[in-house]
Amino acid sequence: MGSNAVADSGDASDPAPYRALTRAAGARHVEVIDQRALPDRVLAVRLDDAEMAAEAIRAMWVRGAPLIGAVGAYGFALALDRDPSDAGMERAHARLDATRPTAINLRWALDRVRAAVAPLAPSGRADRAWAEADRIRDEDVAINHAIGAHGLAIVEAIAARRPGPVNVMTHCNAGALATCGWGTATAPVFAAHARGVPVHVWVSETRPRLQGANLTAWEMAQRGVPHTLFVDGASGHLLRREGIDLVLVGTDRVARNGDVCNKIGTYDKALAAHDNGVAVYVGLPSPTLDASLPHGDAIPIESRAADEVLGVWGRAEGGGTTRAAIAPEGTRAVNPAFDVTPARLVTGLITERGVTRASAEGLAALFPERYR
Amino acid sequence: MGSNAVADSGDASDPAPYRALTRAAGARHVEVIDQRALPDRVLAVRLDDAEMAAEAIRAMWVRGAPLIGAVGAYGFALALDRDPSDAGMERAHARLDATRPTAINLRWALDRVRAAVAPLAPSGRADRAWAEADRIRDEDVAINHAIGAHGLAIVEAIAARRPGPVNVMTHCNAGALATCGWGTATAPVFAAHARGVPVHVWVSETRPRLQGANLTAWEMAQRGVPHTLFVDGASGHLLRREGIDLVLVGTDRVARNGDVCNKIGTYDKALAAHDNGVAVYVGLPSPTLDASLPHGDAIPIESRAADEVLGVWGRAEGGGTTRAAIAPEGTRAVNPAFDVTPARLVTGLITERGVTRASAEGLAALFPERYR
Repeated sequence: MGSNAVADSGDASDPAPYRALTRAAGARHVEVIDQRALPDRVLAVRLDDAEMAAEAIRAMWVRGAPLIGAVGAYGFALALDRDPSDAGMERAHARLDATRPTAINLRWALDRVRAAVAPLAPSGRADRAWAEADRIRDEDVAINHAIGAHGLAIVEAIAARRPGPVNVMTHCNAGALATCGWGTATAPVFAAHARGVPVHVWVSETRPRLQGANLTAWEMAQRGVPHTLFVDGASGHLLRREGIDLVLVGTDRVARNGDVCNKIGTYDKALAAHDNGVAVYVGLPSPTLDASLPHGDAIPIESRAADEVLGVWGRAEGGGTTRAAIAPEGTRAVNPAFDVTPARLVTGLITERGVTRASAEGLAALFPERYR
Repeated sequence: MGSNAVADSGDASDPAPYRALTRAAGARHVEVIDQRALPDRVLAVRLDDAEMAAEAIRAMWVRGAPLIGAVGAYGFALALDRDPSDAGMERAHARLDATRPTAINLRWALDRVRAAVAPLAPSGRADRAWAEADRIRDEDVAINHAIGAHGLAIVEAIAARRPGPVNVMTHCNAGALATCGWGTATAPVFAAHARGVPVHVWVSETRPRLQGANLTAWEMAQRGVPHTLFVDGASGHLLRREGIDLVLVGTDRVARNGDVCNKIGTYDKALAAHDNGVAVYVGLPSPTLDASLPHGDAIPIESRAADEVLGVWGRAEGGGTTRAAIAPEGTRAVNPAFDVTPARLVTGLITERGVTRASAEGLAALFPERYR
């Protein structure tokens, strides 16, 4: 793929009236959508310091591997505006890095900003960090578009085989709200929709935090993409009975061998897809590839509060928000936030450099510099 | 197994202070727990006529294949108290049969009561129907105990291999609340717990109606069985990482070849269990076997209201109940209530006559009268 493909599926045709992250030119702050208020309100919040940026990541005002990488980078820049000393730099890196463990993009972005600023005198570090964070953001937008272009070819090939919409099942949210641009898993969908290729997106609600119902369904509605919501447990049944053409998800970290870590429930879908001969594709921006880990079982899986399982937040009947507690008082719950889909269950990884097999060989062919 | 085994895991050792269905001796009505109020309140409602019985099944005040069979039988008796004519009998059968389509126990119980009363003069039909319904209830209790005894042997064999609790994953509720007795899938667990064999039950919340969180977690708490709740999508991850010894579920209908229809999400669990070498057992009371259908794809799958997917009912923060709407207004949702697990993924069927393979041969060996 080249810059033409990127331009073909680029911003000009993107009608979406929202951006997960914006920085006004020259501003020493960023604005993000507080995604906890979606789908009911688009609530922009201004991140004015590194503490707020860390809290935004930790408490999931923002989420999605590429997006938390970018917010982490801007958080680092915000920290250096206050204290650009060596000690301040290390403190900021450690504090931001500790917010969430699984998505490698966060560590990757922090390391990248630190590498860019560490050689400089403290007085020059903050400006350089802001510039590097902008670069990370801009690269993410370009990566999204490239993934969209490569994935579009897959969707178009299916559409060419028969009439009717291409049925895409997704999980969680790997959309514009998970990135700085069009999203990863959603980029091929949005590209197809923009081209008039009919698509229908099957949206898994994604308990416990319901990013499918809250975010992906909202994004599809915003863009006019036909979609249907279902509970996570219906994945296998729908893959068996509903003529789903492909499963298309994002990822929080891919290991050297192509194992895919993604939102809890992805592994179950991949198994069901495999059992029914349905292809599984993963939108993989290269910053999400962690070639330092041999396989997926080495990826740290975030364990979140039981509270997220024990209750469900949503819109109250009369307006406002409400929490429905679903289990007896005192019930013990576990809440692993991610799972690992073995590479053998993945049909292909859609990267900004093209589509490849989920294997060390496949990845090394596209990213030789990461496999030396 | 014989009557000793039944007695060994019998009522005497059951400390549970609740029964899903009760009929006082000689009463011309039954009481059921309105399960929609659980886990917060144990609300008994009296079913006084066939319309209420039909509504109790349709609106899921009661659920669980064996229980709706019994409630259907009593509903038939209630109808015959009013109108024991041939036409009344057929109307009652049709009305009750139309309430829910998937669990074969309902049709089985209605057919059985009709076969018992149809040859009689109208004046004798109602008494006979009440007696037949009692028999169905009593047989269900005995079947539960027998399944408990046969399943206990499986649990004990695992417990004998190593220290620590036997980890059992279940889905939905196939407990005392799904039957007239100890439950099907839960019977081996309760039997083990009563014998001092340590068990730990992993309870899948079971969206959309959350019978795992609302009912199974409550039953385990009532009986003091250690348990942990998790979201449906975490099934694969937990089966891969948490040392689960077996998956143990109920069923709404088993086809001639051993395919198992059960609550939506069961198929996904069976796939994940199979991928990780974990055994999958199904508690199968013989009334749930439908040898007239060649395979599971012939079983009608109930499609329920989208509303159940789009919102979650639970306990409000300040008390009372609340509904949390989780998706944008106007979102389309599908709500298949059951799925089919192919026989190849099932390790064994635990019936009242013993444990057998999920195959026509395995079932015919135990139930030759059904395979002629």
